[in-house]
Amino acid sequence: MEQIVGPAVPAGRAVVRPIGIRDVAITGGPFGRWQRINREASIPLGLEQMERSGALPNLRRAAGEGDGPFQGYRFQDSDLYKQLEAVSWEHARAPEAGYAEFVGQAAAVLARAQRPDGYLNSHYQVVKPDKIYAELEYSHEMYCAGHLFQAAVAAARAGVGESLLPVARRFADHLVEVFLTGGNDGIDGHAEVETALVELHRLTGERAYLDLASKLIDNRGKGLIRDSGMGMLYAQDHLPVREADTAVGHAVRQLYLESGIVDVYLETGDVSLLECSVRRWEDMVATKTYITGGLGSRHDGEAFGERYELPSDRGYSESCAAIASVHWNWRLLLATGQGRYADLIERTLYNAFAASTSADGLRFFYVNPLQRRNDLVEDAYLGRRREWFACACCPPNIMRLVASLGGYLATESEAGVQVHQYVPGTIDAGGARLRVDTDYPWDGVVRVTVEEAPPGEWELALRVPSWSGSTSVNGRRADPGDDGYFRIRRLWTRGNTVELRLDMTPRLMHPHHRIDAVRGSVALQRGPLVYCFEQADQPDGVEMDDLAIAPGAEPRVLAVQDLEGVGRTVPIEIDAVVVDEPRDGLPYTAKPSATSTRVTATAVPYFQWDNRDGGAMRVWIPLA
Amino acid sequence: MEQIVGPAVPAGRAVVRPIGIRDVAITGGPFGRWQRINREASIPLGLEQMERSGALPNLRRAAGEGDGPFQGYRFQDSDLYKQLEAVSWEHARAPEAGYAEFVGQAAAVLARAQRPDGYLNSHYQVVKPDKIYAELEYSHEMYCAGHLFQAAVAAARAGVGESLLPVARRFADHLVEVFLTGGNDGIDGHAEVETALVELHRLTGERAYLDLASKLIDNRGKGLIRDSGMGMLYAQDHLPVREADTAVGHAVRQLYLESGIVDVYLETGDVSLLECSVRRWEDMVATKTYITGGLGSRHDGEAFGERYELPSDRGYSESCAAIASVHWNWRLLLATGQGRYADLIERTLYNAFAASTSADGLRFFYVNPLQRRNDLVEDAYLGRRREWFACACCPPNIMRLVASLGGYLATESEAGVQVHQYVPGTIDAGGARLRVDTDYPWDGVVRVTVEEAPPGEWELALRVPSWSGSTSVNGRRADPGDDGYFRIRRLWTRGNTVELRLDMTPRLMHPHHRIDAVRGSVALQRGPLVYCFEQADQPDGVEMDDLAIAPGAEPRVLAVQDLEGVGRTVPIEIDAVVVDEPRDGLPYTAKPSATSTRVTATAVPYFQWDNRDGGAMRVWIPLA
Repeated sequence: MEQIVGPAVPAGRAVVRPIGIRDVAITGGPFGRWQRINREASIPLGLEQMERSGALPNLRRAAGEGDGPFQGYRFQDSDLYKQLEAVSWEHARAPEAGYAEFVGQAAAVLARAQRPDGYLNSHYQVVKPDKIYAELEYSHEMYCAGHLFQAAVAAARAGVGESLLPVARRFADHLVEVFLTGGNDGIDGHAEVETALVELHRLTGERAYLDLASKLIDNRGKGLIRDSGMGMLYAQDHLPVREADTAVGHAVRQLYLESGIVDVYLETGDVSLLECSVRRWEDMVATKTYITGGLGSRHDGEAFGERYELPSDRGYSESCAAIASVHWNWRLLLATGQGRYADLIERTLYNAFAASTSADGLRFFYVNPLQRRNDLVEDAYLGRRREWFACACCPPNIMRLVASLGGYLATESEAGVQVHQYVPGTIDAGGARLRVDTDYPWDGVVRVTVEEAPPGEWELALRVPSWSGSTSVNGRRADPGDDGYFRIRRLWTRGNTVELRLDMTPRLMHPHHRIDAVRGSVALQRGPLVYCFEQADQPDGVEMDDLAIAPGAEPRVLAVQDLEGVGRTVPIEIDAVVVDEPRDGLPYTAKPSATSTRVTATAVPYFQWDNRDGGAMRVWIPLA
Repeated sequence: MEQIVGPAVPAGRAVVRPIGIRDVAITGGPFGRWQRINREASIPLGLEQMERSGALPNLRRAAGEGDGPFQGYRFQDSDLYKQLEAVSWEHARAPEAGYAEFVGQAAAVLARAQRPDGYLNSHYQVVKPDKIYAELEYSHEMYCAGHLFQAAVAAARAGVGESLLPVARRFADHLVEVFLTGGNDGIDGHAEVETALVELHRLTGERAYLDLASKLIDNRGKGLIRDSGMGMLYAQDHLPVREADTAVGHAVRQLYLESGIVDVYLETGDVSLLECSVRRWEDMVATKTYITGGLGSRHDGEAFGERYELPSDRGYSESCAAIASVHWNWRLLLATGQGRYADLIERTLYNAFAASTSADGLRFFYVNPLQRRNDLVEDAYLGRRREWFACACCPPNIMRLVASLGGYLATESEAGVQVHQYVPGTIDAGGARLRVDTDYPWDGVVRVTVEEAPPGEWELALRVPSWSGSTSVNGRRADPGDDGYFRIRRLWTRGNTVELRLDMTPRLMHPHHRIDAVRGSVALQRGPLVYCFEQADQPDGVEMDDLAIAPGAEPRVLAVQDLEGVGRTVPIEIDAVVVDEPRDGLPYTAKPSATSTRVTATAVPYFQWDNRDGGAMRVWIPLA
């Protein structure tokens, strides 16, 4: 089988199979813009940070080539690995950028830093050589190894920096010797290596990597490592994965773990793994997911929180959690072919994930709240993107996903081709070449033209997003199947066209009655885009925190426009009121004395917020 | 002037002056119950913990008399000091308990542990002798000293354990040598010593203690100590106190600091201190105070949070913050004579504070949320009281306040006597003896009988709580003055009676529109008591999280009753609905499909919650 150049490539058990990054050309739309900015602004910034943040200098220290103290966190190596993965996918996407040199140089540093036995972790080699594998509950040693493996897999598939794979394999073989055959039953406090080991297995065919991933997943929740001090739920070590019913603790850990669980299912066919993961997915979607697709409700422990605990202001919704959610949902989509996973990928990509990066690609959110109040005192930093972070897990993680977005658009199967995300460009899948013309998500018309077609009947499956109230295909009402896809099976010839029309009517969304944090409020959604109200767009003198939607108001969609600082967008207007209520004495009264005046409020897509003045913002807005 | 046996005794600048604990006899009502339980259950438990938790053993180690490693936190000494203060006030209240022996023994240990130069802190003497005063940002050395001073003042005023005061003075003199005259401009990261130094000054007349308190307050917010890692706002070291407009950071620190600020004003007359404190009080009350009087909205940093950020589920409302709020409000009341401060004391005592202790006095809350959901996973510990805590600041703090409650009921002035809190018993003030008969807060009738009266006209001032919609005195409508008091000036003779009738109509309270966390919900209040809905009181099969108040429903007050496990109470019923809404798929819909069925919901006072099964609880309940 030809090597597929893309993320998450299962061998045989997938209901639908991925195509490679090189089989897709993204020529415009938000995805196109994000990829351009990723290449032109974010990746160059990230590469610069690999020196400045200490990631590369630390590894040189481990190689005995550098002075000075270790810089940053114990998982600093992982920043480099994610950056290497990002440039590898970017190379696969558009090789002319010349990242091969960086990958080669970094691989050489890694090779020199790596111990003869294969172990590689600059923090433990430089700072704590006597503690190697002795504090797995928080060491991140296997977490870092996992990111190394993912980088090496990406580099190998992309054909850049061949010297990275031997480093990764030597470390993986060392892990196998210690943790699979060596009698050490430990696991890493931060799941990540599991999914990476499966990918390394897929690339190399080495069965031991898959076996180790299986063992690490089976050993979770058995108390085989200590409590890091954050509690056993934090690291999902409170219950065996097959027994846990709900996502808990550190959101990114839970979500990476789920990717590993589904990956092991895809390779071994252990249905109990798929079942438990789907069970937690259903619970998470119904009770712990922000309308943006964001995950993680608490700063405390960067954790999920309780069911229906979804505060807008202090929500965490870490950028890395959005990325990890896309990884997990993609694997569930491959495993099942069900559109609900592609639906959540879409929601996450266009909202929680896309918001993480500024319009110019040079600033990032770590935390993605759904509300920023006026006049913040303790939280002045929240809701403002920053160039980099002491704990810089997010920026290179964002870059690796943006560079690999092409891999998430479509799949193929014996039946034909499935299109999951609508992006202008071309898709080569199932022996066909499809051209997609669309101004999605600003407009709901998607035209798919067959440019090449294999002989015989085959099926084109188009995802109908669950938000699309009434959908048509070639002018006729088109209701999707239970799995969320509208299917056309026929003989196809060059020039055949399918026109999908999705319902772009803006909707006021109401929260479930158990979500206390946004009771009595609505959120505006149009197509896949969740909107937000920013101070910058409201009438002069109107404070965001006093704005409420007028009774019975209907949203009015404005024309596509280029908004300064923000870029191409479609604002939405709605009638609103400004509430005026006394602000002295206790804020609780038996007889509220608020008055209100009418105004017009304006919303823009959430992913475009904080590109102007840093004023107040709300996704959920009260109903007057 | 006769020594007044009670907390916070300013010299001359008070508009109203405190009376002593011994001038008050509390014979019943909730306060009486709390004092009985404090004596019979809580204090014996606390004394036992002084050995078990390591507080006394640590001091023996510092004295060179004990083996084993230091136990607990670096501020472990303060638990003992608060416990000593509690038993001192308890001795003042009812000396027959025989606590003198414990105070004497503890004082002897402290005297042996104290360094010849007066320094005393078991953590730094045992664990970090080279770091004394070297890490003030988090050392708690002066914080602990402050609690020692308060204990010594209480013991001296109560006439128990005379040996404690010399220890305290030697340490205070040492602080003066180092921080007032010795050129060290440091402050403690945790304010507390300021108010304690002023009290020690009041007791001893030593001016240097007041000067040091002034200097420590003036030096705050000037960056004279390092950031502890929690940020400068955490320790209120971000701005000089006269410039800060809003309460920020660690709530208990801010509130203890405010007590010190008002205390220094009371002694020096520096009006700029009173002004800045009142400014922050007004802002805090209007924007950062829970309906229970609780303070602190975040687990993160045990902090205030932003204006109007008042979540019910993840609110912090630390028991110690309620106590510190009472201290601060009491000083503001003394400084101004304004009833709004006594109003907040009442709200805090009957709700945020009283909830901290179980009905049997043997379990305590550290965190006092206003909501506990069904089926908690990550927060199973929240909303359940515990016998003790690794960081045990709250239980002994609760005990010292309960033992000294008598000091907060009434004041005297040239004009006469002011009664602030209505508790059955007697009050000796202004040369008069008043007997108070009432079943408050279960009933709104308060009968004050003059048992002894000084000659000439004098004024009896009765606080009319701001929640009392229509109030009568001796059968006639009685509107209070702007300061919240109804005044009767006349000649009084033995047997004169005043009957105050407060409006006990239950009220559904609405939150200010800016409080996102409880929008669309109401809270039930009757008299000073905030109510809550507990799972235990709802019809079988009704989940608390689905309960909502029926449109137009009016609360119905039930008869006074003895509820098993809870004690004397007045439940309130109200018509409600149970909302049924699908719980699968994303919890956001354009067209909500909830249905509802009618039930009767029952509420009990918030302070009595978690005395039964540990089920769900809500103070704020949605309006259907």
